Amino acid sequence: MKNDLLLRAARGESVERTPVWMMRQAGRYLPEYRAVRANTDFLTLCKTPELAVEVSMQPYRILGVDAVIMFSDILIPVEAMGQEVKLTEQKGPELPSPIRSRDQVDRLAVPDPIEKTGFVMKIIQTLRRELDGAVPLIGFAGAPWTLAAYMIEGGGSRNYAHVKRMMYSDPLTFHALLDKISDTIILYLNAQIEAGVQLVQLFDSWAGELSPDDYSQFALPYERKIFEAINRNAVPTIIYINGSGIFLEHMATCGAEVLSIDWRVNLSDARRRVGPQLTLQGNLDPCVLLSTPEIISERARELIRMGGGQRHILNLGHGILPMTPVENARAFVEAAKEAVQ
Amino acid sequence: MKNDLLLRAARGESVERTPVWMMRQAGRYLPEYRAVRANTDFLTLCKTPELAVEVSMQPYRILGVDAVIMFSDILIPVEAMGQEVKLTEQKGPELPSPIRSRDQVDRLAVPDPIEKTGFVMKIIQTLRRELDGAVPLIGFAGAPWTLAAYMIEGGGSRNYAHVKRMMYSDPLTFHALLDKISDTIILYLNAQIEAGVQLVQLFDSWAGELSPDDYSQFALPYERKIFEAINRNAVPTIIYINGSGIFLEHMATCGAEVLSIDWRVNLSDARRRVGPQLTLQGNLDPCVLLSTPEIISERARELIRMGGGQRHILNLGHGILPMTPVENARAFVEAAKEAVQ
Repeated sequence: MKNDLLLRAARGESVERTPVWMMRQAGRYLPEYRAVRANTDFLTLCKTPELAVEVSMQPYRILGVDAVIMFSDILIPVEAMGQEVKLTEQKGPELPSPIRSRDQVDRLAVPDPIEKTGFVMKIIQTLRRELDGAVPLIGFAGAPWTLAAYMIEGGGSRNYAHVKRMMYSDPLTFHALLDKISDTIILYLNAQIEAGVQLVQLFDSWAGELSPDDYSQFALPYERKIFEAINRNAVPTIIYINGSGIFLEHMATCGAEVLSIDWRVNLSDARRRVGPQLTLQGNLDPCVLLSTPEIISERARELIRMGGGQRHILNLGHGILPMTPVENARAFVEAAKEAVQ
Repeated sequence: MKNDLLLRAARGESVERTPVWMMRQAGRYLPEYRAVRANTDFLTLCKTPELAVEVSMQPYRILGVDAVIMFSDILIPVEAMGQEVKLTEQKGPELPSPIRSRDQVDRLAVPDPIEKTGFVMKIIQTLRRELDGAVPLIGFAGAPWTLAAYMIEGGGSRNYAHVKRMMYSDPLTFHALLDKISDTIILYLNAQIEAGVQLVQLFDSWAGELSPDDYSQFALPYERKIFEAINRNAVPTIIYINGSGIFLEHMATCGAEVLSIDWRVNLSDARRRVGPQLTLQGNLDPCVLLSTPEIISERARELIRMGGGQRHILNLGHGILPMTPVENARAFVEAAKEAVQ
């Protein structure tokens, strides 16, 4: 591989400089992405390998990031489980028949990932060919708590009232759902690894909405189950949680080699708290990318300094925002490439 | 005063049991509140003292909470500053002309609270007469960062992109706005104290969206400025921040006697971190109130136990949700009243 900085940083091996990529780097802030989307709805884009490959490659070609992440959506396997999913990007996901009963949970399938989501594997295989070893390819999936939240709420949420109502009132049904999602995600990620992804990121994006006790009971055990079942395949693993600062020490025990953290926690504090054995990914507030290239460079250099040059992957604390100017995203990437260890 | 548990707990004096009230306790979960709202829009309710007094008293009469909080909205002084505010409760606040320039900041007034928001003072005076010393009356205001977020975003927000863009790109203009809001809130809270409130809660509800460094730079100094300017008046003060768990130690230096915390931090950990000299308020996930009275009682008793019976005010970690069953809210209040120290 020509540039394996990300893999080495994830494994804790020595790197010449801090690698950089951005969550949601294949996205609406790029005019080239919007051009593809102009003629294609979001779900079609996810399911059309040549287009998904094209938008996956754009940030590598345009910005020179140190990794490509396959273009997809965390709700793709949820649709494969048998729940209707509408993805419109602007409005966010809509699931018109939210899960509210044990009966609905029992009717969900644990789908065969090749049969039901073969297009994802095709995207991965094509990306590996296109990349030809230039940079690593990242696969991903949603974690059980976060996917259950979408499935029960019927979309995004501000309060997570429905999912938490089930969690508190009917924990048996809720655990049954989490188990079924876990089984689905294990098969799905192993199929991605088989197809060729070289790192895997698990998104438990909304687990930060839970109290530390609830996180330990309803999210962490399922993250662990997944990492135990896929670690045998020997690709480095990343976990992302938005708002994990309070329970970082627990998150650190989930089995992932890399903790991807949001901007609400100071990177130096996070390092002190999780110790030297894990890699940290992050953690610029994506809103900083709405300021100026000078401010972005300064903040990114500060993060690189705090990251210490090893076991750190420069990234945002959450996905890049659609209104981000491309030159600002470029300033972020360049800050890593120009940094002297 | 017949029941001054809240005042004593706030001041760190000995109490026979943990006092209890709920953020947004005068609200849509009560049929009696919905009956008033059926004929009155939200802003009219805020500005009509007899109706605002009625809904303020409802949770005391119906549930027997240990305090009454005046019915109002944190955007009332923003309207008085000269920015148009539409309050519809269902849709959340809308500010059709968001602040985006120095010129707009300069045109905002620091209003005389009696002249521009005399109806608030009238509500307070009437409530004190109605209460006749039964329980303490709480006044409140929004903190500068949180109000600036509404003023710049033009309403609620998911990403806080506009306010943070100004914060990062044009900190001078942003500080000018925060200063003007601070001056407004100091006058406003001192007028409330003059009118008769016996505690004051400052809502910096969305300051938890900031990194610890940004909190220390853009939110904390203004909280301090306000508490310094009103502490002379000798009413106990409370600060509420949603998602403050990471920077609790900084929040503890803002000058308030009571820290109102959300559910994402463990109450015992919070006590360990802030030390014995402050009172803690909280911190049940409001979604627990969507479960059953039995589960609610158990969780509330656990919090009362962790709170240690002194320097703790039982409350939710955020406002009560509109879909909360009244019997569930009652179970929460009763748990405090029945607890044996």
